[in-house]
Amino acid sequence: MTIKSLIRTIPHYPKPGVQFRDITTLLKDPLGLKVTVDALVKRYADQRIDKVVGIESRGFMVGAPLAYQLGVGFVPVRKQGKLPAETLGHDYQLEYGSDRVEIHTDAITPGERVLLVDDLVATGGTALAAATLISKLGGTLVECACVIDLVSLGGRKRLETADIPLFALCEYEGD
Amino acid sequence: MTIKSLIRTIPHYPKPGVQFRDITTLLKDPLGLKVTVDALVKRYADQRIDKVVGIESRGFMVGAPLAYQLGVGFVPVRKQGKLPAETLGHDYQLEYGSDRVEIHTDAITPGERVLLVDDLVATGGTALAAATLISKLGGTLVECACVIDLVSLGGRKRLETADIPLFALCEYEGD
Repeated sequence: MTIKSLIRTIPHYPKPGVQFRDITTLLKDPLGLKVTVDALVKRYADQRIDKVVGIESRGFMVGAPLAYQLGVGFVPVRKQGKLPAETLGHDYQLEYGSDRVEIHTDAITPGERVLLVDDLVATGGTALAAATLISKLGGTLVECACVIDLVSLGGRKRLETADIPLFALCEYEGD
Repeated sequence: MTIKSLIRTIPHYPKPGVQFRDITTLLKDPLGLKVTVDALVKRYADQRIDKVVGIESRGFMVGAPLAYQLGVGFVPVRKQGKLPAETLGHDYQLEYGSDRVEIHTDAITPGERVLLVDDLVATGGTALAAATLISKLGGTLVECACVIDLVSLGGRKRLETADIPLFALCEYEGD
């Protein structure tokens, strides 16, 4: 069983010409969920991670079990207006328009070693915005981990230019 | 350490007079996350659960590590338009207006024993809608598990009237 074999490709979603990579078929499979989380646990178990930050909302499905298994806390980065206490926000550009992600200001203690997790990295815009929030709260971002890297969309290069290493469990050419 | 001691209460959120029970302070604590998930693992380890269904999006943070630790698959129930493949949807009434939750039609195999997970049950409307989807796909709903039951809002009674047992790790009077 490979992780890639359990990821479903949905043609022309959410718009014509785009191939959507759907991890719900991976996560609903008992072995798929286990292999995905365990591969990340193996990579980070000796990295002295203090906290896992997951990006809304598919990042929660991978980041929360990873945090649990690493024995550390889990923190959500969410879209604007979803977190109930005091937040720090960061705006970032999309292809058309902009978006904003937020984190609770008390979610990270300065000096903590943080692992950022999402299901997929495309252009890297959301991950970069989340990384900015982690950095502003005084966290040390160890790496950004994802299930899927859409290679040709350039997220890895963009993140590495900002000194953020990217680790992906599998790669697809972006569409 | 009790689970309740790590839940933060935010007064007048999201509107005046409401006390919001915030589990992000529970989940960001390594022991808090562990105790929460382990309490559910203990309850369900011998219940022959085949799948954990988590309700968007705080239900993902609890349901995914639970599924991982039980060694079963994880399935998200999401708001309308968020799931990429063929879905089954169910509308339900809110205090003002209505809402809709969806599940992938291939997420559950008929006959599977399913555990439904959310962070909090208030009136039980969302849980009941999710339960309807599970039932329509042929799943057997074993129980609905949550971190918080807002007792006076009547969710438990409403779910039990529909033959769905509710298990909560802690209770608050609703506001």
